[in-house]
Amino acid sequence: MSILNLPLFIQDTAEVVEMATKDDMGMLWMVIAAILVFFMQAGFFLVESGMTDSKNAVNIAMKNFLDIAVGSLAFWFIGYSLMYGSDVSGGGYFHWGGFTFSQGAADLFFQTVFAATAATIVSGAIAGRTKYTTYAIFSIVLTAFIYPIAGGWEWNGGWLNTASFMPAEFIDFAGSSIVHSVGGWAALVAAWMVGPRIGKYINGKPVELPGHNQMYATLGVFILWLGWFGFNGGSQLAWGGADAVAASQVILVTNLAASAGAIGALLLTWIKDGKPNLSMTLNGALAGLVSITAGCGNMGEGGAVLAGLIGGILVVYSIGFIEKTLKIDDAVGAISVHGICGAWGTLVIGLWGIDGDAGIGLFNGGGAAQLGAQAIGVLAYAFWAVVLSFVFLIIMKKTVGLRVTEEEEITGLDLTEHGSIAYAGKRQREIE
Amino acid sequence: MSILNLPLFIQDTAEVVEMATKDDMGMLWMVIAAILVFFMQAGFFLVESGMTDSKNAVNIAMKNFLDIAVGSLAFWFIGYSLMYGSDVSGGGYFHWGGFTFSQGAADLFFQTVFAATAATIVSGAIAGRTKYTTYAIFSIVLTAFIYPIAGGWEWNGGWLNTASFMPAEFIDFAGSSIVHSVGGWAALVAAWMVGPRIGKYINGKPVELPGHNQMYATLGVFILWLGWFGFNGGSQLAWGGADAVAASQVILVTNLAASAGAIGALLLTWIKDGKPNLSMTLNGALAGLVSITAGCGNMGEGGAVLAGLIGGILVVYSIGFIEKTLKIDDAVGAISVHGICGAWGTLVIGLWGIDGDAGIGLFNGGGAAQLGAQAIGVLAYAFWAVVLSFVFLIIMKKTVGLRVTEEEEITGLDLTEHGSIAYAGKRQREIE
Amino acid sequence: MSILNLPLFIQDTAEVVEMATKDDMGMLWMVIAAILVFFMQAGFFLVESGMTDSKNAVNIAMKNFLDIAVGSLAFWFIGYSLMYGSDVSGGGYFHWGGFTFSQGAADLFFQTVFAATAATIVSGAIAGRTKYTTYAIFSIVLTAFIYPIAGGWEWNGGWLNTASFMPAEFIDFAGSSIVHSVGGWAALVAAWMVGPRIGKYINGKPVELPGHNQMYATLGVFILWLGWFGFNGGSQLAWGGADAVAASQVILVTNLAASAGAIGALLLTWIKDGKPNLSMTLNGALAGLVSITAGCGNMGEGGAVLAGLIGGILVVYSIGFIEKTLKIDDAVGAISVHGICGAWGTLVIGLWGIDGDAGIGLFNGGGAAQLGAQAIGVLAYAFWAVVLSFVFLIIMKKTVGLRVTEEEEITGLDLTEHGSIAYAGKRQREIE
Repeated sequence: MSILNLPLFIQDTAEVVEMATKDDMGMLWMVIAAILVFFMQAGFFLVESGMTDSKNAVNIAMKNFLDIAVGSLAFWFIGYSLMYGSDVSGGGYFHWGGFTFSQGAADLFFQTVFAATAATIVSGAIAGRTKYTTYAIFSIVLTAFIYPIAGGWEWNGGWLNTASFMPAEFIDFAGSSIVHSVGGWAALVAAWMVGPRIGKYINGKPVELPGHNQMYATLGVFILWLGWFGFNGGSQLAWGGADAVAASQVILVTNLAASAGAIGALLLTWIKDGKPNLSMTLNGALAGLVSITAGCGNMGEGGAVLAGLIGGILVVYSIGFIEKTLKIDDAVGAISVHGICGAWGTLVIGLWGIDGDAGIGLFNGGGAAQLGAQAIGVLAYAFWAVVLSFVFLIIMKKTVGLRVTEEEEITGLDLTEHGSIAYAGKRQREIE
Repeated sequence: MSILNLPLFIQDTAEVVEMATKDDMGMLWMVIAAILVFFMQAGFFLVESGMTDSKNAVNIAMKNFLDIAVGSLAFWFIGYSLMYGSDVSGGGYFHWGGFTFSQGAADLFFQTVFAATAATIVSGAIAGRTKYTTYAIFSIVLTAFIYPIAGGWEWNGGWLNTASFMPAEFIDFAGSSIVHSVGGWAALVAAWMVGPRIGKYINGKPVELPGHNQMYATLGVFILWLGWFGFNGGSQLAWGGADAVAASQVILVTNLAASAGAIGALLLTWIKDGKPNLSMTLNGALAGLVSITAGCGNMGEGGAVLAGLIGGILVVYSIGFIEKTLKIDDAVGAISVHGICGAWGTLVIGLWGIDGDAGIGLFNGGGAAQLGAQAIGVLAYAFWAVVLSFVFLIIMKKTVGLRVTEEEEITGLDLTEHGSIAYAGKRQREIE
Repeated sequence: MSILNLPLFIQDTAEVVEMATKDDMGMLWMVIAAILVFFMQAGFFLVESGMTDSKNAVNIAMKNFLDIAVGSLAFWFIGYSLMYGSDVSGGGYFHWGGFTFSQGAADLFFQTVFAATAATIVSGAIAGRTKYTTYAIFSIVLTAFIYPIAGGWEWNGGWLNTASFMPAEFIDFAGSSIVHSVGGWAALVAAWMVGPRIGKYINGKPVELPGHNQMYATLGVFILWLGWFGFNGGSQLAWGGADAVAASQVILVTNLAASAGAIGALLLTWIKDGKPNLSMTLNGALAGLVSITAGCGNMGEGGAVLAGLIGGILVVYSIGFIEKTLKIDDAVGAISVHGICGAWGTLVIGLWGIDGDAGIGLFNGGGAAQLGAQAIGVLAYAFWAVVLSFVFLIIMKKTVGLRVTEEEEITGLDLTEHGSIAYAGKRQREIE
C-alpha cells in the first residue's frame, strides 16, 4: 500500500476536521476493556461471599478491597516495571524499568486490573480461616512480585517467546496460565497449607458447607462473564482494521465457550445427580471462560465451544477430586476453575488451536510443537506459583501465622477480624 | 463529494499513522452495546427472582443461565442463519444461510444477546410452577426458531419491508415488537396454559404474592435500564457522522422515555392508592423503555416523553386487567411490560413518529399509512408468537408436561428441581 | 501543520471507505462515559440502602428513582438551559437558552446523569425520617435550579473563569465542588434541619445504628468506583490525540486516588480501633474518588495518591466530628464524603496541582494564586448550596413539613410511605 505525506487534519468543505487514528481507537477500547475488568472485582466479591458463610462475608469484602486498592498501588509502583520494563538483563526471566515506570496510562491501567484479578483468585479458596494480616501481605507480594515477574516471561517478549529450547512460541493470549493458573496454583498451595475449615471433614469425609447466598454468586458470575469480554477482548491491545475483526472474534468465542462451559456442567450434574445444579453451573460458566482465555485468539468457533464444554465438565470432576481425594478445602472451587481449567485452556491450543487458517494443534495437522510449547509454559507457571507461594507462606507461618484461632473461626472472621457483621438492623434483631 | 484515490495509511511528519475508519468505530460501538445487552440477563435474573418467592430463586437463576448459554449456542448454530441468511426463497417469510452462518463476529454477538433477551422474558411470567425440562426445550425453540424467523421479516429486509400490500414500511428500530412483544405474547400463552400458582386465586379473587426481595428487583431494573442504552443505541448498527448523532439521540430519548414511564407509574399509584408504589414504579420504568424501543429512531424528545409516560400508565392498568379480569397469573408483570407496551411502542410511531423533520404519524400530518403498517406488524408478531407458543406448549403438555406436582410447587422448585436452596449457612440455621 | 482540501471519504483500492473523525470518537466516549455515570445511581441506591435499616430500604429505592427519573426530565426541560445556555445576561452568574435547550444529544445525556448524581447525594444523609413528598420536590428543585445555575459558573465559562477579581481561573475538572460539595452541603443543611433519627442520640451520646446489609454497600461502592471512570474520564469531553492521552491519565489517577483513599481509611481504623473496618474502607474509597474529581486533569500520579490518601483519612475523622461534635445525624456519611472531601479535592489543586509540566500549587512552585482561586470557588459553592437549601427547606417546613411522624418513623417509611416492605415471601414468613 503506497503512503502519502499527509497531515492528520483534513478539510471538509469549509471546516477543518481532525481525524481519528487507529491508535486513539485502540486506546479507547483498552480503557473500556480495563473498566470491564475492574468490575470483575465486584464479581469475585459476590461469588466468594455468596458461596461461603455469612459470618465471613465482611472479611471477603475487605480482602477484595485489598486486592484492588493495594494491588493498584503496588502494581503501579513496582509490578508494572517488573513485568514490562525494557531492561532485560535477566535474560528474559526478569525485567525492570524503574519505580512508577509506565508505557502509557491506558496500558498501565489495563495491566493493573489484570494484576488485581490474579490476586483475588486466592481469596476465595482460603475463605473463612485465614488471618487478614497474612492475606494483606500476600496481596502485596503477589501483585508486586509473583505475578508481574512471571507475566514478563510471555507478555514482555520473555523467554517463553525467545528461548532456543522452546519448540514453538508459547501462546497465552489473555492469561489462562499467566493470570488464572498462577492464581489457581497459589490458591492450591495456600488452601493446603492453611488447612480445611473446621467442620469441613468429619472422620475424613467432606461435609458440604453451603454458601449463604446463591443469588450473590449468580449475580457475581454474570458480572465476571461481562468483565471477561474486556479481559479477553482487551488483550488484543488495539482496535481498528484487522484488530477490530480479531477482537470481535475474540469476544464472540469467549461468549460461546462460557455458554458451553455452563451447559457442560449443567448437563453433567443433571445426568450424574438427577438435578441440574446451580453452583456447578456457575463454576461451569467460569470454567468455560478460563478455558478460552489463552486460546481466544487462536480458536475457531467450534473449537471454542468444545474447549469450553470440556472445561465445564472438567471443573465438576476436579472439584470432587480436590475435595474428596486430595482432601483440600477450596471454599469456592477456585483451584479447579482457575488452576485446572487455566492449564486446560493453555494446552488446548496445542490440540486444536489455529493460527489464521492454519492448524497448529496435534489434531488439526499442526504437529506436536505447539503442544510442547504450551506444556512447558503450563509447567513453568505452575512451578513458579507453587514454589513462590510455598516459600512465602512458610515465612508467614513462622512469623505472623496463617490461621486464626479455632474460637475466632467459629465466631466468624467478620466479628473477630473486622468488628462488624454483614447483616444487621431490623432483620438481625428479629432473628435474635 | 469528490473522492480521491488514497490509502488508509497517512504520514504524520516522520511517522506513518494508521487511520480509523467509520466501520471500525461502528464495530467497536456494536461490541460495547452487545456487552451492555448481555448484562440485561443479570437484570432480568434480579427482577424475576426479587419479585417472586425465595423458594424458587435458584430455579430462576438456572433459567436465566439457560437463556444466555443455550441461547448463545442455538442462535450461533441455527438462529442467526434463519434470521439474517441471504437465501430468501421463503419470499421474505423465511431466510437461511447454512449452519453457523455469520456476517461478522460483532454483528453475530450483538444479535445473539438480543435473542437471549427474547427468551428470558417468558421466564418471569411462569415462575414458580413450570417444569425445568419444559423451559429448557422452550428456550432452545425460541432462540433457534420462533424469534429468528420472525426477526427476519423486518431486520433482514423481509416482507414487512417489501410486501406490496404494506401501506408503508414497518418500523421497529430496536425490537418493541420483534423482541419484546414476541417474548410478551409467548409469556401470555405460557402463563395461561401453565395456570396460576397455588394460592394466587382464592375464590376467584387474586391474592398478592409478594416478591421476596425488592432490593434485587430495584437493582435489576437499574441494570436493565443501563443495558437498554446498548439495546436501543446499538441498533443503529454503526457509529460515526450522522450515525453517531442518531445513536446519541436514540440513547437520549431512551433515557427520557424510561424516566417518564417511571414517573407515570409512580404518580398513578400515588393518586390511585395514596402511596407511590415501588414495584409499579420499577415496571413503569421498564414500560417506558419498551415503549420507546421501536420508535427511538423516529421520535422527538417530547414525543418520547409522552410515549414513555403513557407506557408507564398503561402497564399499571394492564397488570390489573390481566390479574383480575383475565385471571392469568403473570408473576412479574412480563406480559404487560413486554407484550402490551411492546405493541404500544410499535403503534405510537404511527401516531406521532417522525422521519427526520417530517411527521409520519396520524397526529402530526403523516396520515394513516404508517399507523396501518405498524398495526399489521403488531398483529403479525402477536399471531406468530401466540400460535407457535401454543403449538409448542400443547406438544409439551402431552409429552413432558408443563407443570410440577402440587407438592413440588409448595416445597419450592429450588429444592425439588435443583436440590439446593438460595439462602443457606448461618442465617438459615438461625432461622430454623 | 498544513491542511489539504480533502473529503472525509477516501478510497482504499477499489472500495470507498468512510473515515472516522475525532468528533465521532469523542461522542462515542461521552455516551459510554454517561452510561457509566448513569450506573452510579444503582451504586448510590445500594450504598444508601445497605448502610441503613431494612425498614426504609424501599423508600431509598423510590428516592433514587426520583433522582434519575425526575432529574432526567427536569434537567432536559430547564436545567441544561440554565447551565449551558448561551445567554449570559446574568454576567456569568446566570445563563439561559430556552426550554428543552440542547447542544447535542451526547452532551445533554452526559450532563443529565451528572445532575442526577448531585441530587442523589442528599438522599442518603436524611434517610429514615424525611417525608417523600418533600424529597420529591427537593429533587426537582436541585436538578432544575440549584445545581445547574451553580454549574454554569464554571463549566459554561461563567464568573469563576472570567471575573477580574479571581487570582487565577478556578479549576474543577469533573466536579468535586460543582457536583459533590453542592450535594454534600445541601445534605448538611438537610440533615441538620430534619434532625437525627429516633434513637440516634441517647443522652446526647451517638448510638451506632448499623446498616442492614454491608454486602449491598460493598457492591454499591464497586459500582460507584466503576462509574467514576466515566464521571472523571468523560469530563475530558473528547477522545483522540492529546485528549485520548489526557483522558486515559485521568482514569489512571482516579483509580490510584480511590485505592489510596480505601487504604488510608482501612489502615487508620486498623491503627485506631485495632480492626480494619469495612464501612470506613468503603467511605475511604469514595473519599479518594471525590478527592481527585476536581484535580484529575491537574495531578501527577504521586499527587493523586497523596490527595486520595488524605481524603481517606479525612473522611474517618470528619464522620466522627459530624456525628459526635456537631451532633448531626448523617445516616451514610454523605456530608463527609461529598462535602468535606469535595472541598479538599478542590483545594488540593492549589497545593500540588500541575498544569502540564508546570507546578501551579503552593508546594510545587506555583505560588498562592491557584489556591486562592480554589478557595473562592469552594466558598462560593458552599454558600450557594447552604443558602438555597436552607431557604427551600424553611419553605417546605412551613408548608408540606420535613419529617414523618414519630410513629411512622418507628414503623419504617417503607410501610407508611409506600405500603410495602423490602423483604417478603418465604423468609419473612419464617421469621414472623
